[in-house]
Order: sequence, then C-alpha cells, then structure tokens
Amino acid sequence: MAAVKSDIEIARAAKKKPIAEIGARLGIPADALAPYGYDKAKVGADFITSLSDRPDGKLILVTAINPTPAGEGKTTTTVGLGDGLNRIGKKAVICVREPSLGPCFGTKGGAAGGGYAQVVPMEDINLHFTGDFHAITAAHNLLAAMIDNHVYWGNAENIDVRRITWRRVMDMNDRALRQMVASLGGVANGFPRESGFDITVASEVMAILCLASDLNDLERRLGDIVVGYRFDRTPVFARDIKAHRAMTVLLKDAMQPNLVQTLENNPAFVHGGPFANIAHGCNSVIATRTALKLGDYVVTEAGFGADLGAEKFFDIKCRKAGLKPHAAVIVATVRALKMNGGVRKDDLSAENVEALQRGCANLGRHIANVRKFGVPVVVAINHFTSDTDAEISAVKDYAARHGSDAILCRHWAEGSAGIEELAEKVVELAEGGQAKFQPLYPDHLPLMEKIEIIASKIYHAGEVTSDRGVQDQLKTWEEQGYGDLPICVAKTQYSFSTDPNLRGAPEGHVVHVREVRLSAGAGFVVAITGEIMTMPGLPRVPSAERIFLNDEGFVEGLF
Amino acid sequence: MAAVKSDIEIARAAKKKPIAEIGARLGIPADALAPYGYDKAKVGADFITSLSDRPDGKLILVTAINPTPAGEGKTTTTVGLGDGLNRIGKKAVICVREPSLGPCFGTKGGAAGGGYAQVVPMEDINLHFTGDFHAITAAHNLLAAMIDNHVYWGNAENIDVRRITWRRVMDMNDRALRQMVASLGGVANGFPRESGFDITVASEVMAILCLASDLNDLERRLGDIVVGYRFDRTPVFARDIKAHRAMTVLLKDAMQPNLVQTLENNPAFVHGGPFANIAHGCNSVIATRTALKLGDYVVTEAGFGADLGAEKFFDIKCRKAGLKPHAAVIVATVRALKMNGGVRKDDLSAENVEALQRGCANLGRHIANVRKFGVPVVVAINHFTSDTDAEISAVKDYAARHGSDAILCRHWAEGSAGIEELAEKVVELAEGGQAKFQPLYPDHLPLMEKIEIIASKIYHAGEVTSDRGVQDQLKTWEEQGYGDLPICVAKTQYSFSTDPNLRGAPEGHVVHVREVRLSAGAGFVVAITGEIMTMPGLPRVPSAERIFLNDEGFVEGLF
Repeated sequence: MAAVKSDIEIARAAKKKPIAEIGARLGIPADALAPYGYDKAKVGADFITSLSDRPDGKLILVTAINPTPAGEGKTTTTVGLGDGLNRIGKKAVICVREPSLGPCFGTKGGAAGGGYAQVVPMEDINLHFTGDFHAITAAHNLLAAMIDNHVYWGNAENIDVRRITWRRVMDMNDRALRQMVASLGGVANGFPRESGFDITVASEVMAILCLASDLNDLERRLGDIVVGYRFDRTPVFARDIKAHRAMTVLLKDAMQPNLVQTLENNPAFVHGGPFANIAHGCNSVIATRTALKLGDYVVTEAGFGADLGAEKFFDIKCRKAGLKPHAAVIVATVRALKMNGGVRKDDLSAENVEALQRGCANLGRHIANVRKFGVPVVVAINHFTSDTDAEISAVKDYAARHGSDAILCRHWAEGSAGIEELAEKVVELAEGGQAKFQPLYPDHLPLMEKIEIIASKIYHAGEVTSDRGVQDQLKTWEEQGYGDLPICVAKTQYSFSTDPNLRGAPEGHVVHVREVRLSAGAGFVVAITGEIMTMPGLPRVPSAERIFLNDEGFVEGLF
Repeated sequence: MAAVKSDIEIARAAKKKPIAEIGARLGIPADALAPYGYDKAKVGADFITSLSDRPDGKLILVTAINPTPAGEGKTTTTVGLGDGLNRIGKKAVICVREPSLGPCFGTKGGAAGGGYAQVVPMEDINLHFTGDFHAITAAHNLLAAMIDNHVYWGNAENIDVRRITWRRVMDMNDRALRQMVASLGGVANGFPRESGFDITVASEVMAILCLASDLNDLERRLGDIVVGYRFDRTPVFARDIKAHRAMTVLLKDAMQPNLVQTLENNPAFVHGGPFANIAHGCNSVIATRTALKLGDYVVTEAGFGADLGAEKFFDIKCRKAGLKPHAAVIVATVRALKMNGGVRKDDLSAENVEALQRGCANLGRHIANVRKFGVPVVVAINHFTSDTDAEISAVKDYAARHGSDAILCRHWAEGSAGIEELAEKVVELAEGGQAKFQPLYPDHLPLMEKIEIIASKIYHAGEVTSDRGVQDQLKTWEEQGYGDLPICVAKTQYSFSTDPNLRGAPEGHVVHVREVRLSAGAGFVVAITGEIMTMPGLPRVPSAERIFLNDEGFVEGLF
C-alpha cells in the first residue's frame, strides 16, 4: 500500500474552485456572496429571505454510536454522504458545525472531516474561519461587562450580585478561568464577586445564533436572556441592561451562513458550532433552512453520540424550527464497537468478533432510540483498513437482527466512490415516506419529568437524582413561565450513563443533575449531570506544542 | 447652512470602488489581495517580500496637541492629508491604526476619520474588521492558558506562580477583570493565584505584531516574550512554554496589512492598533514599509498627543524599524487650544482670543519637542464652523513666532479640496531635505535615565519618582541584557504631566513610575505612570445602549 497521506496533506492538495462558482451551482448570485478570501463566503440576508416560498429538500441526519478514542468519523461521513448523493445525481448540500478554536490546541485535531471526505480550506475552518466564534465571544462578554457596569454605577435594577448567572466566555481550553473572584483591587474595580468563564461553544449566545431564524429573531432572543436575579428574585433580562441591540450589531455577520466546498467541489455550509456534551450540538437553523431551499438533499450532523446530539437535534432543533428529518444515518466503526465491547486501544488491530458483538449493544440501543423519534435508520460502517471480513459481517448481521441495514463505506479512502451504496439507501429511505417525526416528550410536562424521560428512554437510567436546590429552581422557572421549554442535557459523550468509563449499553444507572441553567433566549433548560465541565482544560502535552507554520507558510500539526 | 450629515451617514453614502481596483492603482496584483467582502482585503506576504528592492517613498507623521473632549481630528487629518496629496498629483498612501472594539461600546465613537475625510467601510473597521484583534486576543490567551497548564502538569520549568507576569486580554472595557483570583474551585482547576485582564490593545502581542518585519521575525519575537520568573529568578520565555509557534499560526493572517479606501477612493492601510497612552500607539511596521514601497508619500498617525504618540513613533517604531520620517504635521483646533487655555467645554463656541493664546503654550511645546527629533514641522488647524477669523489669526501668529507655518484645513467639510495648502506645504518640507531624524536618547543609557530624559525633555517634568522595587527591577533587567531597550511610557493623554486635569504646558511636575513591565518580544520596557489603567471601564451610560441595527440592516449609533 502507498504511504497514507495525512488529512492536512490531502486538504492542501485539493483543487478548489472559486467560491462564487460553488455558490452559482446552488443558484446563489455573486452579489449575495460576501467573499472571505477565495474559498470562503457568507450568504447575504436578503437572498436568504427571498427563498422563503420555495419548497424544502429532504433532511438527513448523520449521528453516531458513543465516541471512543478509536474514532467514528461522523463529520467525515456527513461530508462523504453529501459527496455520495451528488455523485448519484442528487443536488445535495452539506451542513456541519464550525470547529471550536480552543480544543484544536488541546487534544482534539481539526474537525472538518478526514481522508478524502473533507471540507476545505481545513486550516482556516479550524482556526479563525470567518470570525463567527470571535463575534459570539465579544457579544457574550459585552453583556457581562455591561452587567457589572450597571451594578458599579448604582445598580438601578437592584441586581443581587450573588445571583448574577451570566458568566464570561473564551474560545480557549483554560481551566484556570473556570472559577474566580473578580472585581478585586478596590473601589474603582467594582464589587468583588465569584464568577468564571465557559468555553465559547457553551455560550447561550452560540445556542441563540444557532436557533434564531433571522436577525430580528436573534435580537429578540438576546433580549430574552436571563442574566441573574434581583433581590426580590425576579429575573433580570439582557434587555433590562440594554445590551441586546449592541450584541445584535456584533453578531450581524456571524449570523450569515458560511459557504465552503468539499474536496470534490460540492457545496457545504459550515455554520454554528455548539458542543453536544455541554450544549445542543447542532449547526445553525438558518444554514439548515437555507440549504433545504437550495438543495434536494441536506445532510447534517449532530454532535457526539445519538444519545446527546441526535436527541437534542430532534427535541430542540427540529421541535423549535419545525424541521422534519427524513432519515438518520448512525455511524459506527468496527474499532469503536470493539472498544465498546471492552478491547483496549492498543489491541484494536487484532480481530475480535466476540468483543465486537458485545460492543454492538451500544449500536443497537442507538438504533432503537432514533426510531423512537419516528425516523428511519441506516447504519454506516466507516471502514478502517484493519477491519476483517468476519468483523464487518458481524456488524451487518447485528444490525439486520435489529431491523436495520449496515452498509460498509470507504469514503475516507475513496471519496464519493466509496459511499454510493449508502447514498442509494438514504434516498430509498427518504423517498419511501416512512418518516413520521415526533419529539420524545410533549412541551407541557414538568421540567424534571422531561429530564426523567430522556434519562429513562434514551440513557436507560434507573433513576434521576438532584439536590433540593435544583428541584426548587426548576419549579421557580415553571412558575415564571419557562415550563414549556425543552431540556438540553450536559453529559459525558463517552457513555449512555454519566460515567465516561461505562461503555456499551449500561442499564439502571443513576443520573445525578448537579446544576441547572436557564437559557431563556435560546429556549431551553440545561441540566448538567455527572462531572461534565463547561470549560475544558489542556492535556499534559497540548497539541499547540506541535502546531507551527512551515517554511512555505503552511500550517503543520492540525490533523 | 444645510443640515450637517453624521459621519456614518456620509460613510454610508460613499461611492466605494471594488477593493481590487484600489489595489491595482498601487500595482498590487489581484492574486496578492485576499478579499474580505468587496471593500476590504489583505495583502499577501509573498507580494510584500517581492517589493524589498524598491526605493522608499517619503514618510509623513501626523500627530497632535494634547487631546481634549473638544476633539482634534488626528485621524481625520491623516486621511484628509492623504486625499490632499493625491489631489495635487502625488501617489500617496495612508497608514492608520485599527480601532479597538471595546471602547466603541464605551464613550469613544468610531475611529476611522470624520466628515469628508474618512476611511470606509467605517462600521466594519470599527467592529470586527478582518479579525486581527480577535487573533491577537486568541494568541495572547493561548499563551496564558499554556502557562497555567504547564504549572498544573508538574511545573517542569519551576515557575514561581507568584511571579507570573503574563496576564490575559479581552477587547472589551471591563473593569471587573482588572484584578482577580483565578484557579479557584479545587484541584482540577489548578493553583489559585492573582492575575487579571488588560484590554487587547495593551497586549505585548499587539506591539509585537506592529513591530515585526515578517512572519519569521514575529515568531522569534513571540518566543522572546518573558512570561514570568522561576524560583531562581531567571526569566521564563514563551518558547520555554512551547507556545510561540502555535501563536504564530494564530497570527498568520493578522500579520498581513489590510487595504481599504478613503471616501475619495484613495488607498489606505488600516493595520495594528495599540493605544499610545498604554502602549506604543503606532500602526504596523509591515503596513508602513509596504506603503513606502508602493507610494511616493506615506501619511501615518501616532496616537494621542505628540508627547505620547510622536515620541514613541520616533523612539520606538522609527528607531527599531530604521524609518526616517521627512516631516511632521501637528494637528490643533481652536476649540482644543481654548480648552487648554482654561475654557470650559460649554463655553467653547464664544470667541476667546485671550484663552486661546494661553492654550497655545501646549502647541508651542509640541512644536519644539518634535523638532528635537530633527523633523520639520507644520501645524494643521482643523477647522470648526465656530472658529472666528481673529482666533485663526492668533494661532497662525503664535506658530509663526515659533518658526512654524499653521495652515487652516477644511477637509472635514470639503474633503481633499479643503486641505490642498497643507499638502503643498508638506511636499515643500519633505522635498526640502531638512529632515535629519535622530531618536531622543541613545540605546546604551540606563533604563531609568531614559525615563528621566523623556520626562524632562518632552514632559518638562521636574522629577521622576519611583519605589525601590521599580528601581531594582530595572537594574535586574539591565543585568539580564535588556538595558538597551527603549522606553514606552504609559501616561494620561490629556496632559504633559501625569495629572489629566493639568492642561496647557505644565512645568516642574513630578512623574511617578508606579510599575514597570518588560516587553522583551516587542523590544521595550513599559513605565506605567500616574493613574493610567491598562483595562478601561465603561461609563455610566455606555454608548452600547445606543448602538443598534436599523430596519435596513445598517448599524446606527457608531459615530
């Protein structure tokens, strides 16, 4: 076999077309595309508005089994499937999330697909891209500064500084900022109080940008953000602080979808990027809706495993945006299934059908879970060279016993030529009219009951526990009119449970809700479970140490 | 008189040309310009390198008297003079700084000129522009995160956490972040320690970007940053933390100059933007040098009054980059001179020749100071409609007695047609061969002596005081090999003294050096005097409350 090229080498060798040409294929006129360099562009608001009467294409969700260090390739498969659908003659548009800058310098490599199924320019997409995350950081922190400033200049709103819930954000893995005492140093610096930073992807502003339908809706939602409580316990809104309009100004360009291309020159929107373990984990509604107006098929992803990303895609994004997915693809790899069956990472290359069959329990539960939303499922086996025929057969047999096809896909090595069969199957499912989408729970149930439904039906937990404070807080929000909101669970991505080491398909575990946060602007209640953190740290040897510009000015070390 | 249009109304009505056309006038080929929308572009590194053998044009500095709330219009005059030079047939390029985002939401309006002497698109330039400041923020904070991470994972470099000098930055006026205790909350969050945030323009990374000659020099300087000290008091460098190469990757696009246009479609580089009260206050060396290769004349600005901006332009930027300015323009207004003469802001519209003459002492000292650097001077009187003939004559007479022409300029109201006389005078000075540039002090003097020379020769202070700690610190840096660095004084912009209320031309005042900071990568030592702060706060009613998107999608409230 020839030497395998790295993702960045493949990306760098891509024969990119001018972005205006990619836009033209979707019928986007040149003056509706604001270029950022030659290979990135933002789609104008007026053009998007002009599409509203067009019919929608078919929406395909790509989700996955629980991730392991072995890798599953969800974004890779999303990109590959988009290329594959174009290859078989469908006008398909890809919608993925923007990667977060901070984690690129930690352990995570880039997030723009891999092998011959990538979106490009991958270095730009993984770094500053078109500046959307920086705009979100700035808007979030402007509100934070205005809150402390309001208190400093007399606190006309009577904000209880102990009950300010709005933290600050930074797009960096920086554990030192998780918890701090700010405003130290005397009178000129304000009233000392405890606070901290989350990573930008966890910002409610990120969620709002991803869920807002247009700039007017964005401004309304920003105004609805609850930043804390008065001494009389009534909520203080961002609009009380008069910050929401300036925040909208900061976000006006970030709100517009980013158009790039795949290695095969097919169109892809890369827009919005919350993590599904600490946020709702889906790309923006505005990009998805725009793509549905422009393409026959839209392939989109939801973060991490289907227990997190797909559940939130259905219960938050589709419920709130009125989207009706036609089919779902669950990505699995032989390696990751073996890890779910107890094999250690170092032993993954050896054939082990028995462990694989144990690990398939994880896949089986995700298949059953996605069907609970009324959406037909197909499994994509993302091929690795070490996979044996016996292992691949075992996965196919397992899926068949659970009523689903499992199709071997070689898009990583072969691009669209390696994923035709999956593309055909997706078309068959989408056009078969089987999809009858419905969310998992109705709006009107009590908030804690919604958490319990997700925990029992999706995670197969035996019990949900929480402190009295959490329960009281949920009741207070119900009294204040927030009872109809859906739930966004923050949970480890590595397990159905809240214990990252519990792989496979655990049953009867306890989900402890440690903290709840109201995202009144985004329109959901966050339930933080287990040990999950909203600000990551860097590892012992951060990948930043290996990232550099080479002598030709190319970025090395992003992978 | 017809209703006067606001700056943003004038800017919005501008007939902009495609940015490639502006670049073509300077001989920049289209493939060396990376577009950001239709009216902004970055100039490629290879093209800049290809210019190195060309001769340089003439460099003109625009500086000013001490600013007052009455306004002086330094950027406006820089832009106007560039347009004026083009009008009289010179190929002139403008080089100004990028405005900082944070202060736009405080009291300061936009900073892209005013009236009919502006660079456009002014809203973009004042908001995220091409993302340079966000990149600087990210690079700065990546280093900060990697320092705390190094300590967390065993502290192999033996860093004394009490002596970490590298703070964090944010492009926001946020007094609550000035001083904090971070890493609270237990073992997982690191070792609690005192730290804080500065505003991004005060970052050493900003200064490095503005002083670096190319990407290689940038990486070397980033590696040279001193982030703190070990228990044995030896300095810890950014390269010890292995952060400098990833920081370079984050800054690779930010390093390239941004090309925009004036209202009259003349080329302007807007690149780099430190404040002259807390940093060195000049646009980037790479933009200035590129402009000198492309134009016959380059008009650039240095922040605030000549005591801060011009002194640092000469002693830091020109000294280190080998630039030789041909002439300097000192901008004054009748209103600001009257304020310097004791008139209150509300009384400025009434003629008051006597107060004006008193205030001219401020102008006179700036004229004499700039001459100390061997650069010929002309005064630009930036015209306001309330100025009377007697007042204008008084300024002209005063300047003449001090050996300088003072020329009335109406560029704010009339564009280039109103500033022809100044343009002609600048050409006469520049081509007269009078300039014999030399910095104020030689490299080899002790650091404290350099501070004293600036204080006595430029500020006319009677004495420089400092704590023993400050003096010991300077001596230690001299022993470590940093004695040859120039000084960057952080001082209020409102007075020659450290007391912002002491207008005019105070003598014999005391300059107290409160703190010193080593910027080993940028190549200077910062001396912080008086009450100046490196993180501003927001006022009682921040301008953010008045900034919004109107129904047509235009930004209102930036002015």
